[in-house]
Amino acid sequence: MLPRGRPRALGAAALLLLLLLIGFLLFGGDLEYWRPPGAGALDGDPSADRGGHNHSDCVPPPPPLRRCELLHVAIVCAGHNSSRDLVTLVKSVLFYRKNPLHFHLVTDAVARNILEMLFYTWMVPAVGPQVSWIPNKHYSGLYGLMKLVLPAALPPDLARVIVLDTDVTFASDIAELWALFAHFSDEQVIGLVENQSDWYLGNLWRNHRPWPALGRGFNTGVILLRLDRLRQAGWGQMWKLTATRELLTLPATSLADQDIFNAVIKEHPELVQTLPCIWNVQLSDHTLAERCYSEASDLKVIHWNSPKKLRVKNKHVGYFRNLHLTFLGYDGNLLRRELFGCPSPPPSGAEQVQRALAHLDEEDACFEFRQQQLTVHRVHLTFLPHEPPSPRPHDVTLVAQLSMDRLQMLEALCRHWPGPMSLALYLTDAEAQQFLRFVEASAVLSARQNVAYHVVYREGPLYPVNQLRNVALAQSLTPYVFLSDIDFLPAYSLYDYLRASIEQLKLGSERKAALVVPAFETLHYRFRFPSSKAELLALLDSGSLYTFRYHEWPRGHAPTDYARWREAQTPYRVQWAADYEPYVVVPRDCPRYDPRFVGFGWNKVAHIVELDAQEYELLVLPEAFTIHLPHAPSLDISRFRSSPTYRDCLQVLKEEFHQDLSRHYGAAALKYLTALQPPQGPA
Amino acid sequence: MLPRGRPRALGAAALLLLLLLIGFLLFGGDLEYWRPPGAGALDGDPSADRGGHNHSDCVPPPPPLRRCELLHVAIVCAGHNSSRDLVTLVKSVLFYRKNPLHFHLVTDAVARNILEMLFYTWMVPAVGPQVSWIPNKHYSGLYGLMKLVLPAALPPDLARVIVLDTDVTFASDIAELWALFAHFSDEQVIGLVENQSDWYLGNLWRNHRPWPALGRGFNTGVILLRLDRLRQAGWGQMWKLTATRELLTLPATSLADQDIFNAVIKEHPELVQTLPCIWNVQLSDHTLAERCYSEASDLKVIHWNSPKKLRVKNKHVGYFRNLHLTFLGYDGNLLRRELFGCPSPPPSGAEQVQRALAHLDEEDACFEFRQQQLTVHRVHLTFLPHEPPSPRPHDVTLVAQLSMDRLQMLEALCRHWPGPMSLALYLTDAEAQQFLRFVEASAVLSARQNVAYHVVYREGPLYPVNQLRNVALAQSLTPYVFLSDIDFLPAYSLYDYLRASIEQLKLGSERKAALVVPAFETLHYRFRFPSSKAELLALLDSGSLYTFRYHEWPRGHAPTDYARWREAQTPYRVQWAADYEPYVVVPRDCPRYDPRFVGFGWNKVAHIVELDAQEYELLVLPEAFTIHLPHAPSLDISRFRSSPTYRDCLQVLKEEFHQDLSRHYGAAALKYLTALQPPQGPA
Repeated sequence: MLPRGRPRALGAAALLLLLLLIGFLLFGGDLEYWRPPGAGALDGDPSADRGGHNHSDCVPPPPPLRRCELLHVAIVCAGHNSSRDLVTLVKSVLFYRKNPLHFHLVTDAVARNILEMLFYTWMVPAVGPQVSWIPNKHYSGLYGLMKLVLPAALPPDLARVIVLDTDVTFASDIAELWALFAHFSDEQVIGLVENQSDWYLGNLWRNHRPWPALGRGFNTGVILLRLDRLRQAGWGQMWKLTATRELLTLPATSLADQDIFNAVIKEHPELVQTLPCIWNVQLSDHTLAERCYSEASDLKVIHWNSPKKLRVKNKHVGYFRNLHLTFLGYDGNLLRRELFGCPSPPPSGAEQVQRALAHLDEEDACFEFRQQQLTVHRVHLTFLPHEPPSPRPHDVTLVAQLSMDRLQMLEALCRHWPGPMSLALYLTDAEAQQFLRFVEASAVLSARQNVAYHVVYREGPLYPVNQLRNVALAQSLTPYVFLSDIDFLPAYSLYDYLRASIEQLKLGSERKAALVVPAFETLHYRFRFPSSKAELLALLDSGSLYTFRYHEWPRGHAPTDYARWREAQTPYRVQWAADYEPYVVVPRDCPRYDPRFVGFGWNKVAHIVELDAQEYELLVLPEAFTIHLPHAPSLDISRFRSSPTYRDCLQVLKEEFHQDLSRHYGAAALKYLTALQPPQGPA
Repeated sequence: MLPRGRPRALGAAALLLLLLLIGFLLFGGDLEYWRPPGAGALDGDPSADRGGHNHSDCVPPPPPLRRCELLHVAIVCAGHNSSRDLVTLVKSVLFYRKNPLHFHLVTDAVARNILEMLFYTWMVPAVGPQVSWIPNKHYSGLYGLMKLVLPAALPPDLARVIVLDTDVTFASDIAELWALFAHFSDEQVIGLVENQSDWYLGNLWRNHRPWPALGRGFNTGVILLRLDRLRQAGWGQMWKLTATRELLTLPATSLADQDIFNAVIKEHPELVQTLPCIWNVQLSDHTLAERCYSEASDLKVIHWNSPKKLRVKNKHVGYFRNLHLTFLGYDGNLLRRELFGCPSPPPSGAEQVQRALAHLDEEDACFEFRQQQLTVHRVHLTFLPHEPPSPRPHDVTLVAQLSMDRLQMLEALCRHWPGPMSLALYLTDAEAQQFLRFVEASAVLSARQNVAYHVVYREGPLYPVNQLRNVALAQSLTPYVFLSDIDFLPAYSLYDYLRASIEQLKLGSERKAALVVPAFETLHYRFRFPSSKAELLALLDSGSLYTFRYHEWPRGHAPTDYARWREAQTPYRVQWAADYEPYVVVPRDCPRYDPRFVGFGWNKVAHIVELDAQEYELLVLPEAFTIHLPHAPSLDISRFRSSPTYRDCLQVLKEEFHQDLSRHYGAAALKYLTALQPPQGPA
């Protein structure tokens, strides 16, 4: 797990466009010629210029493609939702591909933050230039024009590129599409599929005034670009001239780049190579696509080009949706598979991990734990739309992590904590989709813009609790964080109270402290939450509430000194003691959690030791409290408790932790070592 | 949901072999000729007789294949584990296929029971003949010889068939394999891939005496059979003669049918067409497969032919495992997609469901509920190995249903209930694999043979609680069932006590009764379970236990009369009252649960009404008890409570239920109707 720093805050006015060059540099490539399976020979599109379906004794040879040839793909992507779409598109491409690929991603700052991390943890990195100047009302926003400037924006030595919308899904090997470049005549520079609606015919309604186009026009969801020839032909001038002229009579582009491409092609029809319809089956509302797929035995690319996306009304939408859902839920980890036969430098970081994994000893009791610790999980930051909080000096983000079995805590948590939250969710790809639907179905969750959900994709048998906490912590955007757990509901007033306390106590500049939020628990799963400390104390006295883990493991919170807290009017300092694991508020730059503690046990304890070693004061807040709700043991913890090697391994990990502590803090760490062997208790 | 009856008990000696003819009769087929993508033209197998990789101006035309041609596939399958493998194989075939398929499944009674239900709920039905007579020690058991008799066992008018082992995974369209029939010379009858190990060379160890083979021999995981020619050539005589002769000097076949196929081919090499190696990439322990795939850019079929299966040691196993895992976790519902361009009669039952769905009113408050009720879920009965209980006249099966978030209850439940259980699990395909690993990792669960786990695959937004109960109920194999819920742990003695009570009370022949097991609840999630009624009463008095839903909904269990139960020494009769929902023991042939109640609410209440209407006595057992453990509300119930239309719809469903009741039971049902409008309480 390699979390990166927070994104720079984004000026609302200055839209930052960045070209990410993400290379799936899996290979070099030997020069053997290789023919993609059935390239361009199978569809039933009568408009394709391939001489029909003769089954004579001699079929014209398919266009040659070098084996292991590197294919270039450009995609324009902005915002949270498009970033999710892009991932699904990329999965479908990777699933069928047999060639090395190089993705060129044109993004805004949001998508860049997401995709950089995603590709880094999945595979590779990035750079970039920009544009945006014609007013347009296309639903995907400003980025609708970026495709026009690709010949200028992409590396000058790049001769060919496939350009894709984020709302397409592949059902075949992209090399077959690439092979169609070979059909281009010497004049042709752009390959496009005909538009599968009557839009450009201009007869959809009265006064319908579309931009000019050749016949039905072309759809730009899938484009083959000869960048070399476009640059030579002065493409930049060409499209701007056409666009400027048309804009004199037409107010704005409603289909963005597509209108301009079509206007240019209307003037220069010699530039276009018409691609077979199966390479861009368009599922818009009034699509004519059935003319294509009812004859085609073999659909290649599906294009969800209706604003309704998967909810579009189409009698065959179920069929297409299933292809799309295949990749929505597909485990992206499975796409890390190598390509045989093409020599491949490993993706950045992967080699190091491989080496470390190779050094592990299978006989070691901690083998599974160390393996889990070394696992690089794919991370999708801000999976859902998120507004970063405006900068305030004493603001606090609630930090927690969860898996699917705790989703039902989210609504209550939102009601108790109005402030920003940074939550890491440990999910499979399919669960991430369930999570998305869960949030969409909840009015409470949908209304919140200040909760950042970071999806960490599951891999390996143990729950990587501290890696998850570190992802959520690294993505917190306020100066302070409240390090909580998902089963706790904070006092309704806690968010305000913490900010006031941080200010009053002059944390930061003058004082290095961790504020302790005393923890309680209820054993009732239906429960009236106390609205004040007085009410809480009454519940405590009546036996409806207990101090946290009072029955099972009082050591974990004893140093908080609940007796003193009852009476306290002002914050009071407490001393660290062995096994102390309070819930604390600390500056965002606090130490990270130790990722060696996976599964359950000692994961928070080690963090508090680290805080104490770094001389954080521990200050208990007199009005703060948080209450743990009951739950059945999670699957992860059950598995864990039944593992006989667990306790042995945990002891080893603790010792290693203390050795590292001694190395860092010298003699000062001695007190932790002597406290290492307490009476046995739950881990 | 259409559960079928229990399987016939299986005589240990008489092994029942059944040929299931399962037709994915999705299509008829028009006669247009169609060429599969890249059929037989891309692999780098030098042994394939295709004249190398010339890239001259003219490539020989690929073998023709009729568009929509029906392809026949035969698979031999026995037992629980092979049935799971078969499903994964079939998913991989369906994923890539573009042709209608007809599966011919040769099974034992266990696999038949599983696969008949699976294909019925997924798509289609079945029939069949048999054999087993040569001693063999191949790890897959007796079924290893079935492939030899296929020419006799399959329908006499079937000319060609592809025969597959259950441990192969497709990575391509099976039509490409079928197209290789066209390469057969007039003499050739069988297509096979060379064996990718040195086994048949007979030099693996001293005194290694393999059966005779041509060179390295052939592997029979993937076979193309010309059944018409085999029948004409007297295949049945031919292989039996060869086998009988070899058995004079060799004690038994260790590789089953494969040895015999190879011995016959050694004598008659003219019969075999060697297929390209990529059609059966064999991942056995000492495989030479790399010779194939290091050159092949395009693997077609992977064969896990090591007893170690996915755990086989192979440096590229990660790559192959990912392809396999793709289909293990693939949502089989997505494969219900139609094939375009091939006219298709809908699978049996599907048309009816479609019609019913089409009649639903989208404006109806219950639309989503009715849709859910009509959903046909795929059902995989006895997902894990299971021993049916020996027939005993008073035996009781515990019946319950659960989803992923309750798996952690299973171990405790097994400790409390040593008797048979029939559990329906509502899971995605991926979750079913997690469930499998969960059971394998648990010593308690692995040791139990009398727990039948029936997987019902998730589809739709609402939890189909009563459909799940009905699947578990229909699969119970004892004369009585204890209808429980997954969050309850029964008294340790309950299983014995129930059987004794059934006997003493002379249920069945002389008395029609439902035995009530009083329900309690604890609010503590760590809890010492009472070992006797006396202990339970003490806990009740100390406030550690409550009667079930005492705080939220006492009406649900009030008629049980807990006060009387405290003192009772003998069973006592109680009267039905509105909203009564006790946990009961009834004969297996009791009424089914009403599937209209999906999600949560009224699902058990309606069932008890039905029991009362059918004049079951309600008898409370004085020593029986079961205790509910606390848990966070499930995701399904959370979603539900937040749905504003739910209460409206539930009222409508209740009224419809009562109308149906009146139709069935006439005036006798009046008492339920007058009890319909009780004070508002939880659903």
